[in-house]
Amino acid sequence: MKGFFKVQTPDQLFLKLDRFKPLAPEEVPLEESLHRVLAEDIVSPTHLPQFARSTVDGFALKAKDTYGASEKNPAIFKVIGEISMGRISELALRDSEAVKIATGGMVPEGADAVQMVEYIEWVDSHAIHVFKTLSPLENVIQAGEDIKGGEVVLRKGSFLRPQEVGLLAGIGKTPIRVFLKPEVGIISSGDEIVPVEQEPSAGEVRDINRHTIVSMAKEAGGVPIFLGIAKDRFSDLKEKIGQGLKESDMVVITGGSSVGTLDLVGEVLQSFPKTEILGHGLSIRPGKPTLLADVDGKPFLGLPGHPVSAMVIFHLFGRPILKILSGLSGETASGMRWKARAARNIPSVAGREDYVRVKLEEKDGILWAHPVFGKSGAISHLVHADGLIRIGIDEEGLEEGEEGEVIFL
Amino acid sequence: MKGFFKVQTPDQLFLKLDRFKPLAPEEVPLEESLHRVLAEDIVSPTHLPQFARSTVDGFALKAKDTYGASEKNPAIFKVIGEISMGRISELALRDSEAVKIATGGMVPEGADAVQMVEYIEWVDSHAIHVFKTLSPLENVIQAGEDIKGGEVVLRKGSFLRPQEVGLLAGIGKTPIRVFLKPEVGIISSGDEIVPVEQEPSAGEVRDINRHTIVSMAKEAGGVPIFLGIAKDRFSDLKEKIGQGLKESDMVVITGGSSVGTLDLVGEVLQSFPKTEILGHGLSIRPGKPTLLADVDGKPFLGLPGHPVSAMVIFHLFGRPILKILSGLSGETASGMRWKARAARNIPSVAGREDYVRVKLEEKDGILWAHPVFGKSGAISHLVHADGLIRIGIDEEGLEEGEEGEVIFL
Repeated sequence: MKGFFKVQTPDQLFLKLDRFKPLAPEEVPLEESLHRVLAEDIVSPTHLPQFARSTVDGFALKAKDTYGASEKNPAIFKVIGEISMGRISELALRDSEAVKIATGGMVPEGADAVQMVEYIEWVDSHAIHVFKTLSPLENVIQAGEDIKGGEVVLRKGSFLRPQEVGLLAGIGKTPIRVFLKPEVGIISSGDEIVPVEQEPSAGEVRDINRHTIVSMAKEAGGVPIFLGIAKDRFSDLKEKIGQGLKESDMVVITGGSSVGTLDLVGEVLQSFPKTEILGHGLSIRPGKPTLLADVDGKPFLGLPGHPVSAMVIFHLFGRPILKILSGLSGETASGMRWKARAARNIPSVAGREDYVRVKLEEKDGILWAHPVFGKSGAISHLVHADGLIRIGIDEEGLEEGEEGEVIFL
Repeated sequence: MKGFFKVQTPDQLFLKLDRFKPLAPEEVPLEESLHRVLAEDIVSPTHLPQFARSTVDGFALKAKDTYGASEKNPAIFKVIGEISMGRISELALRDSEAVKIATGGMVPEGADAVQMVEYIEWVDSHAIHVFKTLSPLENVIQAGEDIKGGEVVLRKGSFLRPQEVGLLAGIGKTPIRVFLKPEVGIISSGDEIVPVEQEPSAGEVRDINRHTIVSMAKEAGGVPIFLGIAKDRFSDLKEKIGQGLKESDMVVITGGSSVGTLDLVGEVLQSFPKTEILGHGLSIRPGKPTLLADVDGKPFLGLPGHPVSAMVIFHLFGRPILKILSGLSGETASGMRWKARAARNIPSVAGREDYVRVKLEEKDGILWAHPVFGKSGAISHLVHADGLIRIGIDEEGLEEGEEGEVIFL
């Protein structure tokens, strides 16, 4: 690593991410809004429900006419009709009259409550007995009780889950203004790297990082564009990085197996105008050679070549950057932090943050983390792991039973 | 509800899901295998790594030549060359010779360990001092140490995360045999339901369920196909259900607002050959009218019309069915179960399972569940919720601080 880049802590580098900004908005139909991020506050144009609706199957009536009713002393009501679903009823209730109504039906004029079918009995085909008193508004959801017209129902920066999509459907909001999905140019590098389809000669290895990083970029809401395998040469790196910076919103390169590659990548970046290297070298394991730059406003992330290191660093920095570009508000971008207890002693070295692969096991509501040992190049160990447990920069490891933050993989 | 269907507990109904079987397999290129489920055991055709590789930047040498070396008494080595990445080296080491090597480089013949660059010093341009002893195999990952050729590396039924995709890339496995993604025919029903684009007249409501259930089916790995809004009439329901059963692997209908709709749906189902109603009526809230059937081997799920109820039941039954059709092995299909503590008393009624909408908050590694109250039709409350907390069938609620299982929404 070049001497003029000071090794930073992961937290120091993380703080620099807030210079990046969300992409431009676009409009999508409601059907395509799932897992997108709102680029506008949503104001409801309408009450929801739009009219008073019954929440049960029963009889709409005036609550006051049930006062005093009991099993032994039922109140009697004249049934003057039935509410059809989806229609306005012409019916208007007078005292001691009732109208049959199904769940979701429009409560007719004059009625202020609905008695459940369980608490009535037919006297004859035109009259019912009611055995239980009701309060006004019981079993009725009033117009605007769920959502008021003019109310802000969802904020800019909200992630759209199925229930938010349902809410937008309920108020008839389509199309929706969301942030563009970030396009991520992904480059593999290294003279020894060959495409998966190719039989490697001695000394060559297949390109694992392309596939893990493309997959992780998809999971983080990005649109990955693979730009090919660059040789460890200035000219080849410059061409592919240049293409990525031109065609995508963010560029990620995996640095071959050699630590030196990211130095060369740093030199290539400096040859583009308005490049600022934000960090090169992190006090973290795995992932020390990590490179982060801002090239004329676009984030550039250089990942170590070890597949495991590349995945850890992409998780810690690539994902948060993609979430920022996607327009997620800060709080959501960081996500919920989970804790697990070490199932045995997990050693570490103070002065760097350690992310140890663990297999997670839940027992009586407590999450236990079993370390999965193995050399850092081994992808099979990552397959056996469910997550990573973090050992802080000032800690010398976790003792059995001690708690640490976990990341799910 | 028809009297001849006995109300079941959710657990009783859940046990009946194992009659459904995974769909047929198909082949997909590695690039499209993320989040698919393996339909074959994967046997590695090759060792990984395929040759002994250095795990550090340094010098390959014979470990025995470092024995006794220290800061005060370094061992001296003649540097006979450098390993190029991606090439077979012609070099073969003799005693007290060293070769420069980068991380991932192929360890040359004669060498059995790699000394890190931090523990050497150049004497002149052809010789180095080594200040630290090494054991044989130190800083070397041997051929087959990660994965052995002939070994089963992934089992049929495995869900492919980024790291599994990476492993498949590493062993050159493409295309991959995975289970087909289940196509889910989705029908909304109810005379009062209008499409989102349409301005509802009085008494009408927009189709929320289409959008929530389509979204949830996507999240569960299905391919949703929306078949339209059916009127509450035998003929209309029969036509749309018939179409769904013909064209998709599973059919889901939301039952309008009226409890009676699912009775009518039950009658329609009985008119198809080889229909077995597995359940109609559950001791659960919300979601009591739930209908589950097996129509000539295809799962049919009838959901209540309330958006919130429909989402809860889809989560509890629709998702697990989709995971079975997708070929996920049982253990993975059920998923990890999380617990949270009630942040205040949450009342319930014994004799039914209650799923109460909650906002989850993590404090010092403990998850607290704050109930979000509101009438069951209110979609806005679901937007404020992060999950559901389960209150068991024999419990009368959760006391403040008491633990319950939670589902994330």
